[in-house]
Parts: sequence; structure tokens; C-alpha cells
Amino acid sequence: MGEQDYRDMWKSLDLDLDVHDGLLSVLGQFYGDAYLSQEDRPEGMGYLDFVVSEVHGLRIKELFDAKAEGKKIFGTFCLFVPEELVLAANGVCVGLCSGADAGMAEAEEYIPRNTCALIKSFMGFKLARVCPYVESCDLVIGETTCDGKKKAYEAFEQFKPMHVMEIPQMKNYAADRALWKAEIMRLKERIEEVAGTTITEESLTAAIKKVNAKRLALQRLRKLRSAKPAPISGLDALLVTQVSFYDDPDRFTAKVNELCDDLEQRVEQGIGVAPPDTPRILLAGSPMAIPNWKVPLIIEQSGGIVVGEEACIGDRGFRDLVDEDASTMDGMLDSIVDRYMKIDCACFTPNDERLDHVIDLARSQKADGIVHYAIQFCTPYTMEAFKVDKRARAEGIPFVKIETDYSMEDMGQIKTRVEAFLEQLAEMPVAR
Amino acid sequence: MGEQDYRDMWKSLDLDLDVHDGLLSVLGQFYGDAYLSQEDRPEGMGYLDFVVSEVHGLRIKELFDAKAEGKKIFGTFCLFVPEELVLAANGVCVGLCSGADAGMAEAEEYIPRNTCALIKSFMGFKLARVCPYVESCDLVIGETTCDGKKKAYEAFEQFKPMHVMEIPQMKNYAADRALWKAEIMRLKERIEEVAGTTITEESLTAAIKKVNAKRLALQRLRKLRSAKPAPISGLDALLVTQVSFYDDPDRFTAKVNELCDDLEQRVEQGIGVAPPDTPRILLAGSPMAIPNWKVPLIIEQSGGIVVGEEACIGDRGFRDLVDEDASTMDGMLDSIVDRYMKIDCACFTPNDERLDHVIDLARSQKADGIVHYAIQFCTPYTMEAFKVDKRARAEGIPFVKIETDYSMEDMGQIKTRVEAFLEQLAEMPVAR
Repeated sequence: MGEQDYRDMWKSLDLDLDVHDGLLSVLGQFYGDAYLSQEDRPEGMGYLDFVVSEVHGLRIKELFDAKAEGKKIFGTFCLFVPEELVLAANGVCVGLCSGADAGMAEAEEYIPRNTCALIKSFMGFKLARVCPYVESCDLVIGETTCDGKKKAYEAFEQFKPMHVMEIPQMKNYAADRALWKAEIMRLKERIEEVAGTTITEESLTAAIKKVNAKRLALQRLRKLRSAKPAPISGLDALLVTQVSFYDDPDRFTAKVNELCDDLEQRVEQGIGVAPPDTPRILLAGSPMAIPNWKVPLIIEQSGGIVVGEEACIGDRGFRDLVDEDASTMDGMLDSIVDRYMKIDCACFTPNDERLDHVIDLARSQKADGIVHYAIQFCTPYTMEAFKVDKRARAEGIPFVKIETDYSMEDMGQIKTRVEAFLEQLAEMPVAR
Repeated sequence: MGEQDYRDMWKSLDLDLDVHDGLLSVLGQFYGDAYLSQEDRPEGMGYLDFVVSEVHGLRIKELFDAKAEGKKIFGTFCLFVPEELVLAANGVCVGLCSGADAGMAEAEEYIPRNTCALIKSFMGFKLARVCPYVESCDLVIGETTCDGKKKAYEAFEQFKPMHVMEIPQMKNYAADRALWKAEIMRLKERIEEVAGTTITEESLTAAIKKVNAKRLALQRLRKLRSAKPAPISGLDALLVTQVSFYDDPDRFTAKVNELCDDLEQRVEQGIGVAPPDTPRILLAGSPMAIPNWKVPLIIEQSGGIVVGEEACIGDRGFRDLVDEDASTMDGMLDSIVDRYMKIDCACFTPNDERLDHVIDLARSQKADGIVHYAIQFCTPYTMEAFKVDKRARAEGIPFVKIETDYSMEDMGQIKTRVEAFLEQLAEMPVAR
């Protein structure tokens, strides 16, 4: 497809073409600076570079083609939405734009100034008409994971058909699981209604296998990042996870496995993207939606390397598989219910298993220190950071907290703090 | 009891006496300025003045006496905790300190700077050891109404025995009511365990009647405030509601009814605390815990009068009664479940009934305008303010939003905005 065809496509989605041009130009510049300037990148990243270059082009064209075939498009913002149900209903599941400042002024007409950047972003992308994904959606599926999203969806649904899932806030009681199962059933019905299809045992079995295969590929990548020296940068690995939310799942899984084949060779040959004594960082906290590369970029430009993301766009998304043993519809739905209730989102109280997971991941990835990243005004993760801090210190793992938004104004200030932290790690007697 | 006896009592509660002295002195000064300087106050307010003057004295002594009799003290921060269950278990229910800045620096060691003043306050009062109520408690009962409280309780429970109730986030589905009923049952068991008593049909019947009587007295006061001219200031009426959370319920009900007898006479005689053409304001939004009198003080010092509070410490607390028709234990518990599920807290999505209630209350109280008050960083109410604004404008009711914390630094700025709003009301052709 040529440039003019894309413009026609965007026009048909009622995008604001001028603002959208500006956004793509900024994104291209940022990607060039952050990604293409990296040295010794694995060959397999070529596919990811291509995907990013076509993020508002070819992938949107694919959504158009899917719609022409009668498929419906479902947009999501959260790990709690089971992609399996969408795929089993012959739908397409895409994560929605929420990783960059767009339409901030428009958003502040509907939600408060003191709202986290991610939420402002998804409102802003919609209101400024610059996200071809949300414009392509037949249904947006939200959830009640935090006060900000829960209430912002009430504004959002004025502009787009929405279904909001209720997430229990505790896990230990029978009524919590019952509520969650009821919500899964309610979502299944809504998806079937919008898709105009019926989820069958056969289609759900296939969908469960498909999404598990994607998770296994991402687990494989995680394992390879535990090697010293690290065979891939944190920026590149984060991009892989970010792209997992909107790419075609089968193609994505195949491409990530190819990348991993490549990385395996590197690991065998002891080839890394940074010297073996580079301080290794686990990033933990709020989700980094594409193109939010700010904090890993600062870490890696300051001489560290990110070896894991304890986050929704990260380990939390692929840590657990759906059990594949069930064969009845109800059994499979129970397996989905159980798998998604394992998510250790900060929306739960208590959520102590997250503390275990952070430490386990730091150890398995051989991290020298933890950088806890929270989006400013993200109450669940800024609150929980205090507990992660305490636990990390108790385990003897150096820890630092960063709270920021999507603007670039505080990059210098964060860089100073990150450099000091990396210096502290380099000076530690046990380090590396 | 003499001053020395109180000091001994506070010492036995391990209060920080120096800081506590400072706090009481500031409180006394603020009360003098805000309350005792008012003109034409109803005689019945003498009881409230006495209660405030003894808020950390005589009432705490009563809690000591109750404990000596074997009663247990239960502290709460939220309308969702059914006082009926505490009373039926022969316990005492008290609201906890959260309306003033205290121990802010200590609180920020456990929760983020960007936390709402109410939450910082309850952490701070505990950490600075200046709240005799929390120190007297055998159990603090929290709830998952907002991200801030939900996660702050995880810190708080390091310092005090806690029970956290899970509140559903939706109301429309069977699983929500089932969850809420399960949580009521779980709370009942915990209260019985701590109190060392068993709630009986008899004791629960009596408790339901007792709390309903309190609500009826507050409803009576609300009705009287709808008179023109208003027979009581908004400041005084707010104080009555604030005191309802920690006074002895029977005594409180009797005293409020005496106050209402007094106000009835005033209304009959056309006596008011402000001229009949004074702009009448409905305050809506976040709870104003004692001694948070900042916004009504500004409104009334600027020439307005507050005629209602659409808030948890206000109409939401006494709007609905528990049905008294049930006679079995399960029937009564169902009545409690149903009554508390009517609470139109901004934690619910959707929560459109709140919009109706705001408008209904503005109309019934003959308000000329609505001031929406939100504590800074209170996501649920700052978010919902946008919808209240839209609805108020659709109904032709002037509306203004104020977002602030407990500091006095922005009083001048808020006063300027309130004065402009009152001027706008005075100029309206239909006003008064």
C-alpha cells in the first residue's frame, strides 16, 4: 500500500490527519534516537523495527481486512481481559494507545489534571482523534482495576461502545472468585453478541493454545535475558512485549521464537549487547505502554542494562499459562478464571505475592538492583512501592523509586538519580 | 475529671503529650474563630460546643469506662461499616481522626506525598500518636472504597489490628450483592470475635432502631435547613453530622431532637441566622471530617449560607434507613445489606443515582448553587465532579468546583473564587 492509501484509510477512520502526521513524525524521531542508535542489536529485531514503522499503517490495514471478512475488533487496556475469549469468538484483540502525551487539553475537559499519564493518554488519543486502533474498534473492554480508569471509562463511553469488567479487590474469599467468574461469563456473552458468533469448545481450546504459545515465547525471551552478558537490550525486550498487545498472535509468536533462536546463539557464544560487568536492573511497577520508553532509555543510556520488567507490560502478562487440561466449556472457563485470578496487580489487597514475584524475578534475571517505576498519580503502584522498597532492602537488593509522567522535562533529573544508583551498584562488593 | 486526670489518661494511651497539646490549642483557636464568633446561634448548639471542648477529654473517658465494663471499641473511617453490627455486639463505634494535618512527615514515610489529605491525616494521627480515639480502639474497620485507603490500610495495619471490608464496585449484578452479603457476614463474625459476644435477633433489632433514630433526627435537621431564612448555619449543621460519628448514639439523638425543637420555633417565627436573600449553597463531594471546616467557613464568611452537604459526612450518611420489618437474623442482615448497598459512593461505576441525589437535594434545600468540594488527589470525587458539573448545568443550577487540601495557604484564593460565585448567584434573575 502506498502513502496515499494509508491517508485515505486514516481519513475513513476520521483521524485528525494534521495532528496524526505530527505524532508519527515525533514517534519516528524518538524511535530513531532510542532504538536505531543502539549497537549490536540482534538481527531478529528487524521484524520489530518493521512493525513499529507500520504501527499505524500495515497493522491497521490488516484490521480493515479482518473487518471486511466479518471479524470484529476488540480494544483493551489491561491484562485482565482474556484475549482467549476474543480469539475464540473469531475476533481480533488489540491494546489501545496510551503511552504518549496526545490530546492532553481535550482530556482535561473530562478528567482531572491530576490523573495519571496513561489514563490521560487514552482519553486524549480518542478525543484528539489520533489513534487508529481505537477508531477501528467495535468494542472497548475496560476494567475496574484503579479509581482512575474506573471513573475515566464513564467519560470514555460517551465516545465509544464500552464493556467494563468488575475486578474483585481481594482474592481469598469464595465470593471473590464467584464475582470474577460471573464477570468472565458476562464478558463472554458480550463478546459473542458483538462478534455475532458463538464460542465453542473447539474454538476456545484453539484460542487457549494460541495465547499460551505467545506467553511461552515471551517466557523464553525472559530466560535468555538472564544470561551474562545480556544478549538483548532492555529497550528491545520491552518493545517485544509492547508489540505483543497489538500484533497478530501467531505471526508474533513465530517471530519472537526466531528472535530467541538468534539470542540463543549469542548466549552460547557469550555475545552480549553490553559488557558482562554492566549493572543489571529489574524495572518494577506501572505499565510502560508503547512508546513510553523513557525510563529504560535513561537507564541504558546511563550505562545500565534492563534485564526484566515486573509490570503488566512485562512479566505479569506472560508469567502464568491457562491450564490446557480441561475439555468442557465450563472447565475451560474455570481454567481461565483461575489463571487470571493469579494476576498480582496492585489493585488487590493484600497483594503480598507480588513482593515474592519481584524478588524471584530479580534473582532469576540476576539483577543487581531494582528501579521501581510509577506513573505519577498512579495510586496503586506508588502506594505499593513502599512495600517493595522494604522487602527489597530486607533481601539486600538495592532499590530506587522513580515517579514521573510522559513529558521529557524531568529526563535530566531522573538521569542524575539513575546514574547515582548505577554508581552505587558498581561500588557494591558483591556486585557482578 | 480535672486536667491532670485527662493528662494521665492520654499518657496511658501513649499519646505524644507535647504534640497533642499543640493540636488541642490549634483546634480550640480554630473553633473559636470559626464557630464561637457566629451570631444568632441556636441555643441547642451549646451541647455541641461542650462536646467539641471535651472531644479528647470526656468522650475518651467514656470509652475508658466502657472498656472497664468489658465493652470493645471499634474505629471506622467510612459509611460502609454498619454501626448496627457493632452496637448489637455490645461494642462502641467511633469515627477516627482524619480531618486535620497531623504527622504529615511521618505519614509520608509510608504513603506517597500525592495522597489525599484525609488518608495522610489518619496515617499521621496514628504515627504521631495524637488521636486518643484510634489508641482506644480494639479493632479498626476499613474498606476498599478507594485505591488510596485500600492500599494505605496495608501500611496502617502494621500499627493497629485491622479488618478490611471489600466493597463491590458495581451494583447491578447478583454477584455484587452476594459479595457484599458475604462481607457483611465476615465482618459480623470478626466483630463478635473481638467483642467476645454473640449478636442476637434481640440485640440487632435494638441496634437497628437506635441507628435509625439517629438518622431520623439528622433527617429532621436537614428538613429544617430547607426553610428560608435558614435557621442554622451550615457550619453548625456540619458539626452536628461530624459529631454523629463519635458521640453516644442515644444521647446524640436526644440532643439533636432538642436542637430541632428549637429550630422549629425559629422557622415558625421566621428567624434565621442570615437574611432571607442570602445565597444558599449545597456543598457536594468529598467528606469533611472534623475539624475540616475550611470550605463552609469560607462560604459563610463570604456572605453565603450552606444549606446541605451531599457527602458521606452529610446526607449520604442518613438518607436511607434500615428496614425494620424483618424479624429473623438472616432477614435483618439482608435489610442491612440492602440499605448499605444504596450508598451512592463515587467508588461505584456507574453511579448515576448520585447525580439524581445531588439535584434532588439542591432542590429540596432550595439551594441557589452547588459548590463541589473535592480533597486534592481524591480520584473518585475529582473524577465524578465532571459529571455533577454537566448535570447541574443541564438542570440550570450554577456550579463551581473547588479542589483543596487541609492547609490554610490557599484560603485567600478559594475565597476569591467563592465570592465571585456568590456574586454570580446574587445577579441571577431567578435567584431568591
